[in-house]
Amino acid sequence: MLIIGEKINGTRKEVGAAVVDRNAAFIQELARDQVEAGAGVLDMNAGTNPSREPDDLVWLVRTVQDAVDVQLCLDSANPAALGSALAEVKQTPMINSISGEPPRLTGILPLVAQHGCSVIALALDDKGIPKGVQERMAVVRRLFEETRKAGVTDDRVYVDPLVMALATDNQVCNVALDTMRAVRNEFPEAHLTAGLSNVSFGLPSRTLVNQAFLTLALAAGLDSAIVDPMDRGIREALFASELVLGRDRHCRNYTRAIRARRIGDAG
Amino acid sequence: MLIIGEKINGTRKEVGAAVVDRNAAFIQELARDQVEAGAGVLDMNAGTNPSREPDDLVWLVRTVQDAVDVQLCLDSANPAALGSALAEVKQTPMINSISGEPPRLTGILPLVAQHGCSVIALALDDKGIPKGVQERMAVVRRLFEETRKAGVTDDRVYVDPLVMALATDNQVCNVALDTMRAVRNEFPEAHLTAGLSNVSFGLPSRTLVNQAFLTLALAAGLDSAIVDPMDRGIREALFASELVLGRDRHCRNYTRAIRARRIGDAG
Repeated sequence: MLIIGEKINGTRKEVGAAVVDRNAAFIQELARDQVEAGAGVLDMNAGTNPSREPDDLVWLVRTVQDAVDVQLCLDSANPAALGSALAEVKQTPMINSISGEPPRLTGILPLVAQHGCSVIALALDDKGIPKGVQERMAVVRRLFEETRKAGVTDDRVYVDPLVMALATDNQVCNVALDTMRAVRNEFPEAHLTAGLSNVSFGLPSRTLVNQAFLTLALAAGLDSAIVDPMDRGIREALFASELVLGRDRHCRNYTRAIRARRIGDAG
Repeated sequence: MLIIGEKINGTRKEVGAAVVDRNAAFIQELARDQVEAGAGVLDMNAGTNPSREPDDLVWLVRTVQDAVDVQLCLDSANPAALGSALAEVKQTPMINSISGEPPRLTGILPLVAQHGCSVIALALDDKGIPKGVQERMAVVRRLFEETRKAGVTDDRVYVDPLVMALATDNQVCNVALDTMRAVRNEFPEAHLTAGLSNVSFGLPSRTLVNQAFLTLALAAGLDSAIVDPMDRGIREALFASELVLGRDRHCRNYTRAIRARRIGDAG
């Protein structure tokens, strides 16, 4: 599974301050730590207001690229910021995100197409997040109409079915999992992704809930996720689930991660 | 989910010694601890040779019933031992187990029928454990022919699809999970059970593997399991998975277990 490291996100207080203060050491440490912990892509969210976001995102991209050699995921709703950052990236990045909201489609999809990026596609539109699976799939189908029309092949699209907080509705995971299975079935070339931690918002011992959801999502076809790769519990659920699902030949990845002490008991 | 506590098993060295020495205090503590940890049924396996097993199983049953008020699961392949123990039980017990092996069917199934017991039915026969799902389902279908003919209703049958060690074959969980789904589909009144810990035999940090398998098995319809209820990791996966699967209204069981410190972070 592709891990998209979520930690360089300016809406988090410490990261936001580091962006404003141009604290390169802090950002570079977050980048290195995530890559070491297994992130294959790093999400880059400046989290600042639209007028300064282009400069901030460019600074973030340069700063992170000076520290690590990894694909980036440019996370912004601001076409100007994305455009500026796209001129700086060393590897073709992922873009986070498009959705059925018209400004995202008119402002961001052309950049995705033009630069050959992959893109996260959220199953929501200007009316919000649809409650049921069928309504979410209707949005997803419209999104694929648009990406295909723009020349973006399905294998460059990472559908995020959107997982809400279980604390407010105990069927949110079932809806997300059913949507994942439907996407897998209907758009077999496409990828699936999800922000895992929303699901446990407002609950105690959140990692337990995130782990159970990750296991079920992997079984439903999830092949990437936006997570904190330094969360040992998430890594443990990931390696153990891949093993149980028969995707780890000779248990090699699991036992290797144990030996490297990336997962497992201290003993 | 119904937890069948596995710890009173004479094939475990300490327990076997306690049976031979008639160490009631040791056995009763194991019984109380398991019930307190959430076991709804206690497995009773004397683990001794056939000639003394009837006496030993009767002693176990009396000893445990003096300490706790809970359903027992009489675990023996020996009809004489089962018959003696059946005369002692206060509640109608579960029997562990029948299978497609002729002696189990001729020796044990009549006791199940006569005493109105529920019974664990293993998906194996005298040729061993079938490798594939279809072969296992063939055994399961023959077992239901026999239980129905004996007048045992499907809702008294707990099918154990048999989970082998992942370390020897990385598809064993997929086979077990597919068998569970097939049983659920074809015998909707029947229950499913499994000994969870086999799956991780020979691997390090076994709880991680058991947890991932439990989560997937619950999604596949598992509604009971033969486990160590004192294993905190198993309890954590159980409560978190039921929550994620939408089976815990208002997150009540999960949050209650956290508050009671039965699961979750110390903090």
